[in-house]
Amino acid sequence: MPQPLRLGIAGLGTVGVGVVRIMRKHAKLLQQRTGRDIVITAVSARTRDKDRGVSLSGYEWEDDPVALARRGDVDVFVELMGGSDGPAKAAVETAIAAGKDVVTANKAMLALHGQHLAEAAEAEGAVIRFEAAVAGGIPVVKALTEGLAGNEITRVMGVMNGTCNYILTRMQATGQGYNALFEEADKLGYLEADPNLDVGGIDAGHKLALLASIAFGTKVSFDKVVLEGIQRISLDDITRAADMGFRIKLLGVAQLTARGLEQRMTPCLVPALSPLGQLEGGTNMVVLEGDSVEQIVLRGPGAGEGPTASAVMSDVADIARGIRVSTFGQPAASLKDAPVSGSAVPAPYYLRMELQDKPGALAKVATILGEAGVSIDRMRQYGHADATAPVLIVTHKTTSAALDQATAGFRKTDVIVGDPVSLRIEAL
Amino acid sequence: MPQPLRLGIAGLGTVGVGVVRIMRKHAKLLQQRTGRDIVITAVSARTRDKDRGVSLSGYEWEDDPVALARRGDVDVFVELMGGSDGPAKAAVETAIAAGKDVVTANKAMLALHGQHLAEAAEAEGAVIRFEAAVAGGIPVVKALTEGLAGNEITRVMGVMNGTCNYILTRMQATGQGYNALFEEADKLGYLEADPNLDVGGIDAGHKLALLASIAFGTKVSFDKVVLEGIQRISLDDITRAADMGFRIKLLGVAQLTARGLEQRMTPCLVPALSPLGQLEGGTNMVVLEGDSVEQIVLRGPGAGEGPTASAVMSDVADIARGIRVSTFGQPAASLKDAPVSGSAVPAPYYLRMELQDKPGALAKVATILGEAGVSIDRMRQYGHADATAPVLIVTHKTTSAALDQATAGFRKTDVIVGDPVSLRIEAL
Repeated sequence: MPQPLRLGIAGLGTVGVGVVRIMRKHAKLLQQRTGRDIVITAVSARTRDKDRGVSLSGYEWEDDPVALARRGDVDVFVELMGGSDGPAKAAVETAIAAGKDVVTANKAMLALHGQHLAEAAEAEGAVIRFEAAVAGGIPVVKALTEGLAGNEITRVMGVMNGTCNYILTRMQATGQGYNALFEEADKLGYLEADPNLDVGGIDAGHKLALLASIAFGTKVSFDKVVLEGIQRISLDDITRAADMGFRIKLLGVAQLTARGLEQRMTPCLVPALSPLGQLEGGTNMVVLEGDSVEQIVLRGPGAGEGPTASAVMSDVADIARGIRVSTFGQPAASLKDAPVSGSAVPAPYYLRMELQDKPGALAKVATILGEAGVSIDRMRQYGHADATAPVLIVTHKTTSAALDQATAGFRKTDVIVGDPVSLRIEAL
Repeated sequence: MPQPLRLGIAGLGTVGVGVVRIMRKHAKLLQQRTGRDIVITAVSARTRDKDRGVSLSGYEWEDDPVALARRGDVDVFVELMGGSDGPAKAAVETAIAAGKDVVTANKAMLALHGQHLAEAAEAEGAVIRFEAAVAGGIPVVKALTEGLAGNEITRVMGVMNGTCNYILTRMQATGQGYNALFEEADKLGYLEADPNLDVGGIDAGHKLALLASIAFGTKVSFDKVVLEGIQRISLDDITRAADMGFRIKLLGVAQLTARGLEQRMTPCLVPALSPLGQLEGGTNMVVLEGDSVEQIVLRGPGAGEGPTASAVMSDVADIARGIRVSTFGQPAASLKDAPVSGSAVPAPYYLRMELQDKPGALAKVATILGEAGVSIDRMRQYGHADATAPVLIVTHKTTSAALDQATAGFRKTDVIVGDPVSLRIEAL
């Protein structure tokens, strides 16, 4: 039997503790499956004296993750600290420079520095694996990189932030507004320290950027993801979308067309009866489409100790089995720069606006839409007690450019209060 | 760059042609992703002169797949002929004996001879890969073997025969009976040459046996799968199950408990609103449950040229990338023999029976169930014009042993016509 594979684990939060637990519980199972003993040599975290509910006896301790990354008795550096820069990045760079393989759950670090780190790893013959960085326990990085390797990937979609999906589905289920459910999610510990990472779509955007790089052979370009959070979604939008057979999801979509790479993480309407429409609570779902495979849908827990640690362990097991795949599925030097593309594919849109209660107001809206080339599929005006009437329009397929033109037109009139809420309707 | 990886493809039916097509279309993409050229050296099929819609120029021809498997210029033998024995098995054995890796879509061969072939391959240092044998384009073998390698797998479930699911969902949608839709499926070419492979649950049972082996580290034991086809499912069952919020699916379930290995592929009721309940037409769905990952659901096309060829190519790409994993996820010699277990977990059951229209008949049924320890959750008697009344019962959780006792009791009375249709209700 080969030498044991020796792990150094930096970060003993929820995920780190989960990894230690699996290692203690399933040492034999992992050995049977990978043909190799896998052991933890040393660990590192911010505070040593803390009851984490799991024994750390038998592991060396390092205060400094960089020192852990440098240890001669560590083969794989498991980075579970988080943070796009700072100690996590410094330690990963150190591990790579020492020729060690890296397993990480750090989507922010890879979304911002993935190209640089992948190049560095390849120069040293090391691999970086990050199954746990995207969609928690769902083995989606593996499915995309290896399972669909024979496909030209045509589209990647997904609901990849459980907190946002929790808030949106609870709004629907309870009839409470965004603010109340934001507070509920906060009390339940579902929000990141900076909640904008969740509700602003940034965390999900990181994940989408990583999948897009693998899918399309392009350099990770998180800065080119069109981001819109869920903060503007009102209970009105939720209930009215539901009236028409839709659900609102914070949906990531990435595709590469002749016009370039389109990446967006924005609230969208999806059919209520579609797999994405029925996704409740903190569960994640990723849809992968390829020219041969058609469509694969993967669903599972997007966060939590067990699922995320499961993903970390699959990367560790792969390394123990001798599986070595380029970080983003092909050599980093061969990843392309792709021009940014707006929404390449026309789609129907949902528009909600507050109309002044004046004669001819609705006609004016219809005229402006018509002049912009936006044709109306369905329109509903709701009963109202105020001076403004909620109006809801579903357009036929149109482009975001045409919608922008219409919005500019609306601004020049006096019949609409503020800008319309405009949400793309994504077919599945 | 390393030497090209040279394929010999045996079988040029739908899947074989699909593989050739991908190889011709995506040679460059595959080279970028795997770091190696992948080429087809030679092909074999029953008839040479046949327009398959794809050019075979540039490939050597072999009439005999065994001769193809023996060629010195073939590194990977791609077996797409089918059939559990005969030429497919002979050719695979030849390839392995020559130390070649094997990629196959042949679930029947592996379900019956998987242990023997895995042992032979390992003795020669060769690998056998079979992503295409289970659930078409869904990368479920990879997800289970690699993606969940850190989990003790607790349950595997799935709808893995698209033809059965097509017939069942069309019965529901059109109100036509089983026979009419069997004929429709036949006309559409959805049925195997021996239709019992589909509607008898055998094909799906093969797939379940393969997944169970990986999941639980047990020797493939297809002969121990409890098999029941969909032929007894009537339109009555479909509509009455629907009345109660259920759908009927040919559902595979495998789990390993202290009592042994349970494997069944039988029609079951599942909640209409669950992911499995909403699975329509020929789509497949596999549910994987593990002690850390909780539950992963994978959904995709279960058959067809593109999806199945996609799965074949993922195995080929893995081999080109140097990924070498034991056939069933751990060395064949370490796979255990597990005792057979009946349904280890009690479940509610759906019972449909035709009751004689006699006073006290329903009371007698209730008494017999009570004596067997089966308690009733819901009972409905339907209006009827005949001498018999359809009665439908949903039990509380019970065991199959208790149900067998009740059925024996029913047989001793004269109030029920025939045996009840009894379908397990599977929670998700």
